[in-house]
Amino acid sequence: MAEEQMPVYYEDLALLETQFDEVDREILAKQYVRSAPLYAKRQDIVSKIENFWPLVFEQSPPDVDRYITPNDANIFAKLKSLEVKRFEVPMGPEKIEAETGDPRSIAIRFEFDSNDYFTDSVLEKKFWYRRSNDGWSGLVSEPVKIDWKEGKDPTEGLTDAAFAVFEARKKAGNMKLKDFAAHKKLVDMIEQWNADNTSFFTWFGFVSATRYVSAEESAQANKEYKERQDKRAQGERIESPEPEEDEDDLDISGDDEVHPEGDELAQLIAEDVWPNAIKYFTQAQEMEDMSEMDFEDMSDEGDDDEPIDLRALVGNGKAKSKPSNEEPPKKKQKK
Amino acid sequence: MAEEQMPVYYEDLALLETQFDEVDREILAKQYVRSAPLYAKRQDIVSKIENFWPLVFEQSPPDVDRYITPNDANIFAKLKSLEVKRFEVPMGPEKIEAETGDPRSIAIRFEFDSNDYFTDSVLEKKFWYRRSNDGWSGLVSEPVKIDWKEGKDPTEGLTDAAFAVFEARKKAGNMKLKDFAAHKKLVDMIEQWNADNTSFFTWFGFVSATRYVSAEESAQANKEYKERQDKRAQGERIESPEPEEDEDDLDISGDDEVHPEGDELAQLIAEDVWPNAIKYFTQAQEMEDMSEMDFEDMSDEGDDDEPIDLRALVGNGKAKSKPSNEEPPKKKQKK
Repeated sequence: MAEEQMPVYYEDLALLETQFDEVDREILAKQYVRSAPLYAKRQDIVSKIENFWPLVFEQSPPDVDRYITPNDANIFAKLKSLEVKRFEVPMGPEKIEAETGDPRSIAIRFEFDSNDYFTDSVLEKKFWYRRSNDGWSGLVSEPVKIDWKEGKDPTEGLTDAAFAVFEARKKAGNMKLKDFAAHKKLVDMIEQWNADNTSFFTWFGFVSATRYVSAEESAQANKEYKERQDKRAQGERIESPEPEEDEDDLDISGDDEVHPEGDELAQLIAEDVWPNAIKYFTQAQEMEDMSEMDFEDMSDEGDDDEPIDLRALVGNGKAKSKPSNEEPPKKKQKK
Repeated sequence: MAEEQMPVYYEDLALLETQFDEVDREILAKQYVRSAPLYAKRQDIVSKIENFWPLVFEQSPPDVDRYITPNDANIFAKLKSLEVKRFEVPMGPEKIEAETGDPRSIAIRFEFDSNDYFTDSVLEKKFWYRRSNDGWSGLVSEPVKIDWKEGKDPTEGLTDAAFAVFEARKKAGNMKLKDFAAHKKLVDMIEQWNADNTSFFTWFGFVSATRYVSAEESAQANKEYKERQDKRAQGERIESPEPEEDEDDLDISGDDEVHPEGDELAQLIAEDVWPNAIKYFTQAQEMEDMSEMDFEDMSDEGDDDEPIDLRALVGNGKAKSKPSNEEPPKKKQKK
């Protein structure tokens, strides 16, 4: 940066991007507050539909679906409800004062029927949108402990190991701590079988695509960031913080991350699966209608066995009608 | 629909979807108004950057890029500016009264430097979000006349033919008119070479993915639709209009549409290329940095020819600095 002259328009464009970001955050929060009552209504309706959420995940977009192994699908068959909250958006009368939260922070809550895999009935994963003191910003999370039943853990110990490392770091008061026993074990496990282990459930062990950033670091970084932006808006030329010397920390998640794309997967669930759930559910039903038709075609030749009625799954008997064409469920805009 | 009992939740879900739609429209309009001054600022900055828009289209997402042939790319190299407007969103003090417009209607305006292909300096295509009396809703458009220079039309007459058919229908006062001479010619041309002709510019001839819907039909259909929804919200069971008998009209665009996915392409330009232009421009520059590095690597062995400096294209000399890492241009949320 020192010798070479940066063209002026780069600074202008970068400042402009932060202003666009501000508007996007404001709009995202507004949309969240406005649609919250509708999502509550939807929860009400779909709680009466058997297998609503399993069918949604069955039809989920490819970038989500690719993480769901056949074994994971058996677990998702027990999914009773899903809920996505932007928990840092103030919903009540405190709306006016609050400036601390970020609407990009998300909590994803899975509720399960009792099942053969784990004893938990709720698995909730939270993602905080934070800024680091070296210029990075994005979603960080904490590993969720899952109480796997004996021999039933599809992550083969990875979520447990990620949880243990995080706890040890918290206890030591140093989130960058490395090379202690539990850490070595985690790194070994990842090296050994993470390449082959694509279970969706490793996602519950996700920490960060770069490194963990604490609430305190983020608050301080946001404060300094805002001061720089204000000065820039006044026309001052201000240097940005340089990335840390250990570039590994910043550029890629280390060898101790069990699900390097965990933040993207969280966003896909929050911005696609969640808002478009009715569409995916309808698609799943249409797929089943089609397979039913295939069965009927095949049974043309006097075979009078009843075709397998996949629709019975959704408590919908043999009714074949679709939602009216008034408003065909469609992809809503991404949130 | 008559004999079979529709499960209640279908009606509830369909009503809910229309309520989500309402919120989405409101939020879309709000976002448009809030970010308009920022887009104006951006136009100002990028007008000073040589080849900004050609580079954006060079890096455009695959679903846009696949329509741009090498020959089209030569035309895009002359693109001076792009502008996307949601022209039915009221921007001024009339904001309060206006209830007629739809924020999903879009105008896409291309401004070109003088070039070898056509004499127009501006090509603007408008898309109206409309509802038909048989239950469909979506974007419809009118063909744009392009004054191609002799022998330079990459659409091989398709845009002219689409324009002629639309004008003849308007004159006859019947937008469903078929089988007149110009119409037969258009259908023949499409059958003959549209399969091979993927020129982006056929998009300017797009009318509808189903059939053209006039402003009058849409206003009437919206009125009736609203009445049905209000009754449904009161708990009444109301039948939706049945699709027209000629199902071809509703389900797929006829054999007279020159660019059947024209509405989707318009949305991609409005919701991805336009909001993310800075990101695509930055990517294009990074690509060029990389090719430059390759050239330098290759010239290691004493070859002292200057490597081709692609960055000179953008009036940026040999400066290699990137925008600060403060706010790396990133994909903004879809509008």
